[in-house]
Amino acid sequence: MNYEKAKELLLEKKYSLLKNELKNVPPVDIAEFLDSLDEKEALLVFRLLPKEIAADVFSYLSIERQAELSDLVNETELSAIMEDLYFDDKVDLLEEMPANVVKKILKSTSEVERKMINQFLMYPDYSAGSLMTIEFVDLKKEMTVGEAIERVRKTAPDKETIYTCYVMDSQRHLEGTISLKDLVLAKSESKIGDIMQKEPIYVKTHDDQENIADMFKKYDLLAVPVVDNEHRLVGIITVDDIVDVIEEEATEDFYKLGAVEPTDEEYISAGTFKLARKRIVWLTFLMISASLTEFIIDSFDARVAAFGLSAFIPLLMDTGGNAGAQASTVVIRSIVLGEIAFTDLLKVIWKEMRISVVVGTSLAVLNFLRIYFISGRPIEVAFTVSITLLITILVAKMLGGILPILAKKLKLDPAIMASPLITTIVDSVALVIFFLIALSLLTA
Amino acid sequence: MNYEKAKELLLEKKYSLLKNELKNVPPVDIAEFLDSLDEKEALLVFRLLPKEIAADVFSYLSIERQAELSDLVNETELSAIMEDLYFDDKVDLLEEMPANVVKKILKSTSEVERKMINQFLMYPDYSAGSLMTIEFVDLKKEMTVGEAIERVRKTAPDKETIYTCYVMDSQRHLEGTISLKDLVLAKSESKIGDIMQKEPIYVKTHDDQENIADMFKKYDLLAVPVVDNEHRLVGIITVDDIVDVIEEEATEDFYKLGAVEPTDEEYISAGTFKLARKRIVWLTFLMISASLTEFIIDSFDARVAAFGLSAFIPLLMDTGGNAGAQASTVVIRSIVLGEIAFTDLLKVIWKEMRISVVVGTSLAVLNFLRIYFISGRPIEVAFTVSITLLITILVAKMLGGILPILAKKLKLDPAIMASPLITTIVDSVALVIFFLIALSLLTA
Repeated sequence: MNYEKAKELLLEKKYSLLKNELKNVPPVDIAEFLDSLDEKEALLVFRLLPKEIAADVFSYLSIERQAELSDLVNETELSAIMEDLYFDDKVDLLEEMPANVVKKILKSTSEVERKMINQFLMYPDYSAGSLMTIEFVDLKKEMTVGEAIERVRKTAPDKETIYTCYVMDSQRHLEGTISLKDLVLAKSESKIGDIMQKEPIYVKTHDDQENIADMFKKYDLLAVPVVDNEHRLVGIITVDDIVDVIEEEATEDFYKLGAVEPTDEEYISAGTFKLARKRIVWLTFLMISASLTEFIIDSFDARVAAFGLSAFIPLLMDTGGNAGAQASTVVIRSIVLGEIAFTDLLKVIWKEMRISVVVGTSLAVLNFLRIYFISGRPIEVAFTVSITLLITILVAKMLGGILPILAKKLKLDPAIMASPLITTIVDSVALVIFFLIALSLLTA
Repeated sequence: MNYEKAKELLLEKKYSLLKNELKNVPPVDIAEFLDSLDEKEALLVFRLLPKEIAADVFSYLSIERQAELSDLVNETELSAIMEDLYFDDKVDLLEEMPANVVKKILKSTSEVERKMINQFLMYPDYSAGSLMTIEFVDLKKEMTVGEAIERVRKTAPDKETIYTCYVMDSQRHLEGTISLKDLVLAKSESKIGDIMQKEPIYVKTHDDQENIADMFKKYDLLAVPVVDNEHRLVGIITVDDIVDVIEEEATEDFYKLGAVEPTDEEYISAGTFKLARKRIVWLTFLMISASLTEFIIDSFDARVAAFGLSAFIPLLMDTGGNAGAQASTVVIRSIVLGEIAFTDLLKVIWKEMRISVVVGTSLAVLNFLRIYFISGRPIEVAFTVSITLLITILVAKMLGGILPILAKKLKLDPAIMASPLITTIVDSVALVIFFLIALSLLTA
């Protein structure tokens, strides 16, 4: 859609042309346009939208805009939006809105629905319960395919997906699933009970969203049923929400790799103190850990001061840290993707050892040549630094490979063993190695 | 499925029981089971599979197992598998197989298909063309809904998805799309041309997979049509493949954050030299860049040697590096998610400045107290180190915030400005700041 043109039509008050312009535009794009307008303009354009798509557009608006509009529209309009919103969007909305808006919204929902909303609000964040919606097509085993298609046709407009239908008994226990594809292909007089998938993949209300995303990936699902402890069907999760989960989980791991605590908020809109708080804990912890290096240098440096070795400390620390970061990054990602488990520990050690020899030797030789020929230092110094570099890379890659796997084994998040922590550990190790080699080679 | 039990049945040669055990098991799980067996066992079990699911199971096998089985089965069996494979899986298969297997496979495909396969193999990696498949339902504008549903029903078994149907003219130009939901809801005598989505979202054969994934996320798509330069419909991409793309792209960014070049191969199965090569380039580049620190220390250290300042170098470098890594990680991720653009540069600078003041002051005070009271160093030294720490954090967070945005502006991947490079830059900057402050405060 052409935002400039739409904006122009709005300013020129050519509302019926604008209305026409918005036809055939995907709701998410209309929402983006509304977000770019001021409050009054947004309300005006929102009221121009055909009823069928108003709720859909509303669900894509920014939280701030949703709150403003909920506040501005009258109660009839608000009820109409609420009625058309999918249940999961409604619950999400109520979680985010300020109290006065929540009150106004709840006023326009029925007693039964209010109860159900409350129940949904109680599911823990990041659980199946917090992701699911209730708009699915339910069928009975005894129905014929013809009856089932008739039911799909009748209920489809209100359903989030009709491409998988769910078969329940009278106590709402999940008995099976059947795809619309299979319904369309089956003979009209077949019984649903005979052709349904009898052991469908399902999740439980308290299952973690990360595991659910893994199931979608593995089984190429479009939707999955959610059951409670009594195996009663309480909702479904659709693939579009799972795509968001995969993104969220990747962001979370990213942040951990950068020693930042994850947050749901966008960087641009989050407050300074909130962002600072997400960073200060790790930074303080790492700083205190790094002060160990101070004591190591203090206790060794005087004895080898004559050789001017301290000039090489940053290079050794950086390269060691980077070498360890490489190993830990690859291993953490492999654990997350389910490619590495604890049983692979020895394989990882053996692999990192071989990589270290290849990488470490090359870098050590390069470094030796540079220090000896270009910087013109004594050969003993060049040798000390290069041997330390090789051993540091070896140790760094070992630690980077092993620690995430051990963390996982200890039921910790492997991502805490990401580059910042590995770097800090490697720094102290590198210094000790450096001084020990220097003492034995240079002061012998 | 119970792998132990299945394995037992296999060893006891209870094949009909095993066949029964495998019923209702998702193909991907059967493939996992086959991958865990030896070559002969795998062939045996594979031959037990009902014809309808054999090709599906085959498509989920590891590449090695696919090659072995393709080699072991006879030509009739291979033709049967190939016939049932979706076209995109067939193309993927041919890309991965050794030459002798490719020859055998191509023998069992028709001339027309061989031509089409060759065309598909020519699309660049990571493009829409390399992701798409050709098994979609095509309709004509002139059809009635009843005729369209009849066509869906007839062609459904061979289609990768029937939930979106594609309307083409006689030259195969894409004219619109219609969801099966809309077909099911519409009156049987309505014309497709009247009820189809006339301006559907589409991509072009050479579009990058990352942009396509963004479209799926934004518009909650289940599938998207792919057109060539003449707007002819050549294929579709389905959401299950996009889920894999999102994962791949996240892995790629992860690797960059850890200064490792991305690879398609799994860590465990990749060779040592291949893995080493993915790491050595960045490591060498960073090491050479880090050697700048050597010269900085050399040119300053002697003048302030009396104060034992070199003991603080690692701490300053580490904390500066971590502070910069935090900022760059958050900013890179925000750019990838489309939350930050070049126009936000000033906002980012201002935000990082405020965060730096909060975080930097806290850490500097903490550090001052520790050095003065716990380590018992002179107050001037504690002051020098702490002021340097504050300024280093400020500079580091500025660089971490600015550089990824500039990289993006220069059409580079913002992820190259990740922690390893930021750390290396910050190290040199921190050292210069440190010595300059030391010179002016301590030797005045």
